[in-house]
Amino acid sequence: MPGTVTAAALIIGNEILSGRTQDQNLSFLGERLGEMGIRLKEARVVSDDADDIAAALDALRARYDYVFTTGGIGPTHDDITADSVARAFGVGIDYHPEVYAMLKTWFESIGQEANEARMRMARIPDGASLLDNELTLAPGFQIENVFVLAGVPSIARKMFDGAKKRLTGGDPVCSRAIKVHVGEGAVAEELGAIQDIFPDIDIGSYPWSKDGAYGTSLVMRGTRPARVDEAFAAVLEMAERLGGNPREE
Amino acid sequence: MPGTVTAAALIIGNEILSGRTQDQNLSFLGERLGEMGIRLKEARVVSDDADDIAAALDALRARYDYVFTTGGIGPTHDDITADSVARAFGVGIDYHPEVYAMLKTWFESIGQEANEARMRMARIPDGASLLDNELTLAPGFQIENVFVLAGVPSIARKMFDGAKKRLTGGDPVCSRAIKVHVGEGAVAEELGAIQDIFPDIDIGSYPWSKDGAYGTSLVMRGTRPARVDEAFAAVLEMAERLGGNPREE
Repeated sequence: MPGTVTAAALIIGNEILSGRTQDQNLSFLGERLGEMGIRLKEARVVSDDADDIAAALDALRARYDYVFTTGGIGPTHDDITADSVARAFGVGIDYHPEVYAMLKTWFESIGQEANEARMRMARIPDGASLLDNELTLAPGFQIENVFVLAGVPSIARKMFDGAKKRLTGGDPVCSRAIKVHVGEGAVAEELGAIQDIFPDIDIGSYPWSKDGAYGTSLVMRGTRPARVDEAFAAVLEMAERLGGNPREE
Repeated sequence: MPGTVTAAALIIGNEILSGRTQDQNLSFLGERLGEMGIRLKEARVVSDDADDIAAALDALRARYDYVFTTGGIGPTHDDITADSVARAFGVGIDYHPEVYAMLKTWFESIGQEANEARMRMARIPDGASLLDNELTLAPGFQIENVFVLAGVPSIARKMFDGAKKRLTGGDPVCSRAIKVHVGEGAVAEELGAIQDIFPDIDIGSYPWSKDGAYGTSLVMRGTRPARVDEAFAAVLEMAERLGGNPREE
């Protein structure tokens, strides 16, 4: 029995907090981890500040089975994630010989100087193992239960693929959803009563509106498919009775 | 001299963490607060769990000048933000007479029952003041330095407009950005040296790629326009010298 496996995300970067860049990694991590039965329970977004990164990382890695960081592993002065992670774990950080050699060869092969900034991407905390990706030679890395991924969404996704085989999944979460054409207020009381009958099912209610129409999406999530189906049936019966013109989403 | 004013965001909702819903409030808050000279320094995303909401709120409200929460103030069983906020502040929560009367009159006027679930939206922590919005009658609220907004982005924005006049802005942050057509590795060393010369300017470097082309966006942010201009000029000179074909963004 795998049981419940939890994770947190640590999104690193001033550009996310300033609103300049819309984060695209949190929803991706939540979805992909969920498919593996790993529940993303918390996320934090912090600026490019070593103290803030280390403090958030320490809080999250102690509490959750896995932590995934995104951002701050490039070559510029504001890329301080690797150093901050090393600090949080109280380990040293140095050029990783294999990555150093690989990056140096590659930069020289394309006629670019293997300058100090570019080679910063070879700096990996002591004891970390590499997370390769198919798009760049600069790796992410894993240290204990922390996985350090790039901020660029396409690269973060490839690094996550590299991390997947190292993760122990939990009970897979399955979900069913019903779209109704009445507001939350019309279903709320009975929905709450159904939630009380199914404490093992996470029943969510989300308003929607489109082209002047409005209604509610009702989502049932749980690890036992038969129970999700039972909750689904109860919610469907309720929605039909209340005239919500329900459809499975 | 207003000085530095800080804020945090607390995004509440299982649907954000599961990846079902892409958050749209964080970037909005970061941008709008930034325009007022208030720096969004941290954000947390937590699930619909009263302990988690209260713990995150306590951590954030002690550390930052303002906290903005989004989500969890609707009529359904998973809308527990108001109760969690009351718990964090150690105050009671009850129907707000004015909101109760208004909601009841409105529901009855449109032929909907003022049922317990719908009237839950009138429950406001003791001592809180209301944040009206133009789209719904259900208000957000303010208690001390915490502003509680809806999760639906359009409503959150209206509630934020209602909160604005209560915020004391800081030194306005201004920014200038330069788009160059070379990778981060080409500019990183000199950019780091320029950052050292301008410790009061936050210089960010963000890779971009589009239609097969790639490059770097360099963003200079600070509270003293003349210094931002000086840093901008230094970065522009560097980018021209390095053949980055720079353009102001």
